[in-house]
Amino acid sequence: MPHTPVWFMRQAGRSLPEYRKIRDGIGMLDSCRRPDLVTEITLQPVRRHGVDAAILFSDIVVPLAAAGVDLDIVTGTGPVVAEPIRADSDVDRLRPITADDVRYVDEAVRMLVAELGPIPLIGFAGAPFTLASYLIEGGPSRTYVKTKAMMYGEPALWNALCDRLADITLAFLRTQVAAGAGAVQLFDSWAGALSEADYRRHVLPHSSKVLVGLADAGVPRIHFGVGTAVLLRAMGEAGADVVGVDWRTPLDQAAELVGRDKAVQGNLDPAVLFAPWQVVEAEARRVLAEGGSAPGHVFNLGHGVMPDTDPDVLTRLVDLIHQASTR
Amino acid sequence: MPHTPVWFMRQAGRSLPEYRKIRDGIGMLDSCRRPDLVTEITLQPVRRHGVDAAILFSDIVVPLAAAGVDLDIVTGTGPVVAEPIRADSDVDRLRPITADDVRYVDEAVRMLVAELGPIPLIGFAGAPFTLASYLIEGGPSRTYVKTKAMMYGEPALWNALCDRLADITLAFLRTQVAAGAGAVQLFDSWAGALSEADYRRHVLPHSSKVLVGLADAGVPRIHFGVGTAVLLRAMGEAGADVVGVDWRTPLDQAAELVGRDKAVQGNLDPAVLFAPWQVVEAEARRVLAEGGSAPGHVFNLGHGVMPDTDPDVLTRLVDLIHQASTR
Repeated sequence: MPHTPVWFMRQAGRSLPEYRKIRDGIGMLDSCRRPDLVTEITLQPVRRHGVDAAILFSDIVVPLAAAGVDLDIVTGTGPVVAEPIRADSDVDRLRPITADDVRYVDEAVRMLVAELGPIPLIGFAGAPFTLASYLIEGGPSRTYVKTKAMMYGEPALWNALCDRLADITLAFLRTQVAAGAGAVQLFDSWAGALSEADYRRHVLPHSSKVLVGLADAGVPRIHFGVGTAVLLRAMGEAGADVVGVDWRTPLDQAAELVGRDKAVQGNLDPAVLFAPWQVVEAEARRVLAEGGSAPGHVFNLGHGVMPDTDPDVLTRLVDLIHQASTR
Repeated sequence: MPHTPVWFMRQAGRSLPEYRKIRDGIGMLDSCRRPDLVTEITLQPVRRHGVDAAILFSDIVVPLAAAGVDLDIVTGTGPVVAEPIRADSDVDRLRPITADDVRYVDEAVRMLVAELGPIPLIGFAGAPFTLASYLIEGGPSRTYVKTKAMMYGEPALWNALCDRLADITLAFLRTQVAAGAGAVQLFDSWAGALSEADYRRHVLPHSSKVLVGLADAGVPRIHFGVGTAVLLRAMGEAGADVVGVDWRTPLDQAAELVGRDKAVQGNLDPAVLFAPWQVVEAEARRVLAEGGSAPGHVFNLGHGVMPDTDPDVLTRLVDLIHQASTR
């Protein structure tokens, strides 16, 4: 590629009027299960912004629903799990999944790959810790207190749950790669709630099972979490080729932490997009310069696009990154 | 002191049945303005747990209300500001405060100091960034997008607001020290939303105005925020004698970052208190050991006590810290 590649986490989503229109009256889970909608929504930001990658429109809980978990995604709240996981018998309720359980994803990926041509499609899945947190808390959390209580107090149950989740995630990502996804991103969105010691003991082995399990798939593996300043070294050991970094850690420092054999992805603060353009430009150029010290840099935000973001700013940012990084 | 001192952020609060009882039917702001209630609530955890310090029962927005801001503390939500700050004229609405504006605090501190005898009372205030975030967002936030938009896009307005807030905070803490508080803690609870560069440029000068402004008060100054792994070096330069650290950064590493002339405070994960006692004990001993490498260590949690915490675990933890650290 003649320039630094750029895409945005949550590039497909509420920041786009065409997304709000197509989703009107259709629930989130339903949208994720309709290949026509997934394809259209995934393509919208590619058409509008000219980003260098598409990312499969999905939700972190889609494979959990496919595994038999009774859950819903409630507008304004997030995933709500009917019966949170408390015991071994609850883990047994989580069925292993195969491609047959997520036919709609297989189909959407095939349609997307055909439409996208040379533009890669990034596969999407949540990592075991983040999935476990939803299943244990019953929904989004700020403290992860039930999740941590299980992690600390019932390590056998915790490991059984996360091992099952790793298998589900692996099957979900393998389905996407088999259908033609050219890369995968494993989101451990909430791992930043942990210390490095706890992450290494209770989380890293399970994330590693997913990422190392994809080694033979032959596609780049991206691994991302928010607030991971103290975890970057450990996340760099999980088996990814690219480590995503939020805005708190400059990319030159992040590159040292994740290891010089890996690329970094990130890390413009999504809140910067609400500032005047000269601030956006200065911050984007700083990110490019800091990312330039890594063996590879994929430009992105440090977290997902916020719903109220002006999409024109994103389009302009893509142009800036392409121009400013042309070699 | 013959052992490592220990107290807990939010030790006075919903984890205690006697607190829930005394607060029954009384709003948060009203409670903070009644010296009898403030005194009783502040003393409750001292009596029950035998902690080595009391911390004034208050809320981060109390001085803002005293400065004329129309706000309320809504149960389950947090502070809600009627007219969020958008312009210079809104900053002008924030009056400077004097001890006369917070007579109830002056009175409560005097009563407490008399009751507490040799046990120090820690004064309480929020730092400019965190206060500004409530005033700009209009309430609690997960993204701080309006706050950051002002910080990036309207730096003159941002600095005027934070300078005013620094003055208010300074007056609020000076009132407490004048009435006998033996230490102060400046909470920049949400500073962890920022990169180090943004913190240094937009926040540090204002926090420093407060902390350095108290240098002549002759009491230890504690400075704390959550998720501050990348900020500890800068926070160590703000003028505090003790830097509070959340559970994500081990205290031995934190001690290096904040500077060898400062003590550290922390940092047991409050979620650990929901684990079996043997886990609590092992983690507490680890924190003591790591804190032992700093020039001084005040044992605390890495964030506030969570409402559902079993208070007996806190009492047992105080005993453990006292026994395990007796020199």
